Amino acid sequence: MTMTKHISVPRGTADILPSDIPLWQQVETKARSLLKIYGFLEIRTPIYEDIGLFKRSLGQTSDVVNKQLLEIASSAPVGEEKKDNEYALRPEGTAAVVRSYIENRLDVKEGLSKLFYIGPMFRGERPQKGRLRQFHQIGLESIGPNTASPFLDAEMIGTSVRLLHECGISQFTLKINSLGTQDDKENFSKLLREKLKSKLTELCADCQSRFERNVFRVLDCKNPGCRQVVDSFQFSDDHLSAPSREYFKQVRDAVSSLSISYEFDPKLVRGLDYYTHTVFEFVGSSLGSQDVLGAGGRYNNLVSDLGGPQPAEAVGAAFGIERILLAMPQENKPSAPPLDAFMVALGEVALKRAFVIMDFMRKGNISCDMISKAGASMKSQMRQADKLQALYVVILGEEEEKNHSVIIKDMSNGDQQIVGWDEVVEYLRKKLK
Amino acid sequence: MTMTKHISVPRGTADILPSDIPLWQQVETKARSLLKIYGFLEIRTPIYEDIGLFKRSLGQTSDVVNKQLLEIASSAPVGEEKKDNEYALRPEGTAAVVRSYIENRLDVKEGLSKLFYIGPMFRGERPQKGRLRQFHQIGLESIGPNTASPFLDAEMIGTSVRLLHECGISQFTLKINSLGTQDDKENFSKLLREKLKSKLTELCADCQSRFERNVFRVLDCKNPGCRQVVDSFQFSDDHLSAPSREYFKQVRDAVSSLSISYEFDPKLVRGLDYYTHTVFEFVGSSLGSQDVLGAGGRYNNLVSDLGGPQPAEAVGAAFGIERILLAMPQENKPSAPPLDAFMVALGEVALKRAFVIMDFMRKGNISCDMISKAGASMKSQMRQADKLQALYVVILGEEEEKNHSVIIKDMSNGDQQIVGWDEVVEYLRKKLK
Repeated sequence: MTMTKHISVPRGTADILPSDIPLWQQVETKARSLLKIYGFLEIRTPIYEDIGLFKRSLGQTSDVVNKQLLEIASSAPVGEEKKDNEYALRPEGTAAVVRSYIENRLDVKEGLSKLFYIGPMFRGERPQKGRLRQFHQIGLESIGPNTASPFLDAEMIGTSVRLLHECGISQFTLKINSLGTQDDKENFSKLLREKLKSKLTELCADCQSRFERNVFRVLDCKNPGCRQVVDSFQFSDDHLSAPSREYFKQVRDAVSSLSISYEFDPKLVRGLDYYTHTVFEFVGSSLGSQDVLGAGGRYNNLVSDLGGPQPAEAVGAAFGIERILLAMPQENKPSAPPLDAFMVALGEVALKRAFVIMDFMRKGNISCDMISKAGASMKSQMRQADKLQALYVVILGEEEEKNHSVIIKDMSNGDQQIVGWDEVVEYLRKKLK
Repeated sequence: MTMTKHISVPRGTADILPSDIPLWQQVETKARSLLKIYGFLEIRTPIYEDIGLFKRSLGQTSDVVNKQLLEIASSAPVGEEKKDNEYALRPEGTAAVVRSYIENRLDVKEGLSKLFYIGPMFRGERPQKGRLRQFHQIGLESIGPNTASPFLDAEMIGTSVRLLHECGISQFTLKINSLGTQDDKENFSKLLREKLKSKLTELCADCQSRFERNVFRVLDCKNPGCRQVVDSFQFSDDHLSAPSREYFKQVRDAVSSLSISYEFDPKLVRGLDYYTHTVFEFVGSSLGSQDVLGAGGRYNNLVSDLGGPQPAEAVGAAFGIERILLAMPQENKPSAPPLDAFMVALGEVALKRAFVIMDFMRKGNISCDMISKAGASMKSQMRQADKLQALYVVILGEEEEKNHSVIIKDMSNGDQQIVGWDEVVEYLRKKLK
């Protein structure tokens, strides 16, 4: 235990220091109160889940499952179930919410379950700006048997827009597309493969392997060569069946009825296998290549795919909290609240007394602190009071100890007042109102 | 994707469902506002850390490090640092807070850092009542160079007592002991080994190996044989050096000055290697063998042990949120807040209109919901309003659509009122005040 090398925060993760906390709390508090207004209830699932859950929901061929899962190993046998189950830190929130929805039979207890979560997610990627291994999301899901309705897609989008607005973010573009049903998606894959076949050599190595495995991903590739190929294609909604096209039209009408403007982007797919019909994305204007603030879509088959006892349709969205924080205007950033009072004690006897008076103040819900060690000078104690932005300083010296009083100094104007020990709490409470 | 077996929550973890959330939020909100009053600021560290951090802080021989760490493996190479660093889910919070304190040079920025955290911790134990693999803690730390003061030990204990009281928990015992300095601890180990030597065969197999490795753990063993041996010993504070004894006396005096009663328990040690001087425990009265609600102590060497550029003394405490929830009196348990309003729409035209009116209500911060799908009967919509405990129901039928009005029904008394579309938000806001 005499090593002096110090240990760092894991690569791709970050400490959230006290100076950052007011901003995080502001976003979380806004989200919680807003989502209550929109009828969403919070749910919290574990930090890790059975790996099978992610394979079955996100798709065996997805990058997230193939390259980015952080798996868990126990340093010692933890029980007989060890043989069958392997766990991974959750890379996203939807799969776990659906797992919980099924396991807790919310399909029977509620008609439509409107759920939200706030918490860390994990992907073993190469860290870069805006991409962390531990990042944080606010996510929403509306799940229920026989609930598919264009109004719920539009509600999901409307709630998302409001969330961004509440965070002071108004510079973003909403992109919308429809993937249609599972059959429509397969038609679209075929169409895409046909178009790409003659241009295979122009694609990057990743995309050449994606061509068979997961052709939609070619549309997202950031490689300039792939982008050029993709940009040359024209798509519309032809690959959709008539009912899917009609559903999509109703979604767009409902979104418009909420006075929300959007861009129809026929090349918008999403990285996760489970989407059907509506997909959407909120693209910020200032984050560079990592400019997606949040995204979501409808997933009508996931409950069945994960073994739900009855089918249930669903739509969801998720936002990256780190990305929201980057996009928030600087002037919206809150600072730490000031301390109500700081105790200054001169001498050992006064220190003991001040410690007890401080306790009474705290029990009276006055936020308060002091240097709890003998020997600090008046000057260094006043410096600490300044540092903590104390509104009042409560001074206890030899004289005051004798008179059972304190001096209370109003730091905004320097006014001083002598107050008896018994009256400190009441005096400050009145002043602080 | 046609398997029907459904996947369960990982063993030893639990979903926190919407019905449990108000209780969790109550405890977290109380803790946050209380700790602000006591001058503690929130910090959030990552869910996982370098395994070396836990080995160096908790001790190579501790059960936590040897048997209970959940390690992380990436399913693919994530970068060159993979060779040197191995990670584990954090089994407790102190090590990471100290790591962050050192890394962010809080020793230079602040005299005394008073920090708190709320979040999940992980131990790969056999799940049992009150012991989960993912559990949650509220933890506090006061860290700073040259800050060791009996008043800070007492403040840590006083803040802890207040936290339990705020959660409605008054039935608990506070046990206090002092381990003294590192030298004093070694003296105590020797003393303990001498006493145990002749009784080794009466100890369980685990304790026989603990005898050399980590003799303090014998004092905690739940095995009846070991307990009997330990119960036969008499200890006091003889193994402490004179300055340690004096320090301990001052801590107890300061605790008493806050009108807090305690039991001196000379057999109280704690499972983690880093404690020096004061250790304490809050023992609840109703949880059986898992009856420790929270615990803590002073750790004056950990900052240096982890490579801090200058020594810093520290004292901390941590509470199990699940244990607090079990110990909370039933009558304190909050329920979900009611919904302000529920929209009932009769017919497709009304549904579209209701969807837009609902949006205006939500933008006016009235919590509101509806069945957003055509075809629901009046009866089933009213049933849903009841289920969500809506205070008001806003009804829109053909007649109202024609008159640009709605009927607003007060669910507490059945009163109905016809209100124009433009006035719905204002009308309800007044009513809801």
